[in-house]
Amino acid sequence: MFQERKRIVEEKDISQAVIGRLPRYFRYLGELKDEGVERISSQDLSELMKVTASQIRQDFNNFGGFGQQGYGYNVEYLYNEIGKILGLDQQHNFIIVGAGNLGRALGNYMNFERRGFIFKGMFDQNPELVGRDVRGVRVLPMESLEHFIREHEIEIAVLTIPKTSAEDVAEQLVKYGIKGIWNFAHVDLNVPEGVQVENVHLSDSLMKLSYNINRYRIEQG
Amino acid sequence: MFQERKRIVEEKDISQAVIGRLPRYFRYLGELKDEGVERISSQDLSELMKVTASQIRQDFNNFGGFGQQGYGYNVEYLYNEIGKILGLDQQHNFIIVGAGNLGRALGNYMNFERRGFIFKGMFDQNPELVGRDVRGVRVLPMESLEHFIREHEIEIAVLTIPKTSAEDVAEQLVKYGIKGIWNFAHVDLNVPEGVQVENVHLSDSLMKLSYNINRYRIEQG
Repeated sequence: MFQERKRIVEEKDISQAVIGRLPRYFRYLGELKDEGVERISSQDLSELMKVTASQIRQDFNNFGGFGQQGYGYNVEYLYNEIGKILGLDQQHNFIIVGAGNLGRALGNYMNFERRGFIFKGMFDQNPELVGRDVRGVRVLPMESLEHFIREHEIEIAVLTIPKTSAEDVAEQLVKYGIKGIWNFAHVDLNVPEGVQVENVHLSDSLMKLSYNINRYRIEQG
Repeated sequence: MFQERKRIVEEKDISQAVIGRLPRYFRYLGELKDEGVERISSQDLSELMKVTASQIRQDFNNFGGFGQQGYGYNVEYLYNEIGKILGLDQQHNFIIVGAGNLGRALGNYMNFERRGFIFKGMFDQNPELVGRDVRGVRVLPMESLEHFIREHEIEIAVLTIPKTSAEDVAEQLVKYGIKGIWNFAHVDLNVPEGVQVENVHLSDSLMKLSYNINRYRIEQG
């Protein structure tokens, strides 16, 4: 246990770029595991994932290297280890704040449960949405937020509300003890140290796509 | 026109990291414009956006610098120029393939229209979903895809289907002339050069959040 903890503490300075690549490794390794592949070399993994083998080795070295031994990585071991690093061996209770279309769509998405993310509650300030049922979870009014978060040990709040109210709600969530915010509101949140924010700015992503389409068209004349 | 085209062609080698930051500049500048701010120095923009002023200048220099003149950038000009670079001065017709929860949520999201992304059609292979109405758009069967894409000059396809069918559908879309895929399927797509893909891997993003929560907890002991 202490060893484990120590190893992970030493990851402190690992860049968010490396962290950002871990879920992709996890995904590919999960597929290899499902296909019954037992070992894979960094070269083969490199070709599969279209990143350089040296990038893979560098990334993995941040976590001790995972024992590549000439004959390659043990797929299941690597999958499990990366899963642990990502915290997927633990349960994470989450709520969704904002029961509009996107909030309900995320609530209905079952796959998060497979990774240990448990959908516990849903909140909205709109009385017309309160009381609705989303996959067995009833939408509650915002007034219930504090009690619910403390009672159900909620760790993560998914924020699917307009940007105008996002900062106020984020402040409340932090006060009530939320550890992480998965932010879909189109605004950058200011939260104290110790609260993690991961943004999904959908419009930004669509604009990037539009840029690349445009650029290609112009290059082609 | 030739000047314009030339300028953008010269952007050829601009990294995707820079491109990825443009929508955020665009968002902040839009807010400043809405607040009536006419000029802003790179220093003030830097404090607002929490990036270094030198990063801002470097990013903007990729596009000719936008005429910062000691007394700062003209907010509206900069907003419009970045909008043009992102292709937001043009109309982009899109369809959504996959009329499940996420697809419908994206179809119901009105804000894309404001940026010139026009929701034209929606498709699903599930007969129970075909015929449904999503914000005035009727869900059509997959057999209509080819004709619809050509008839309505569809440029972008939003892919909100399971990963098992995503590659096949992407291949069809490319064949029918789609220029860009906004991919929400949990798989990396292989498309020919000239077709742009922008991924939104929601699970990856949630795992990154989980990693950061975990790490902070362990660091705090």
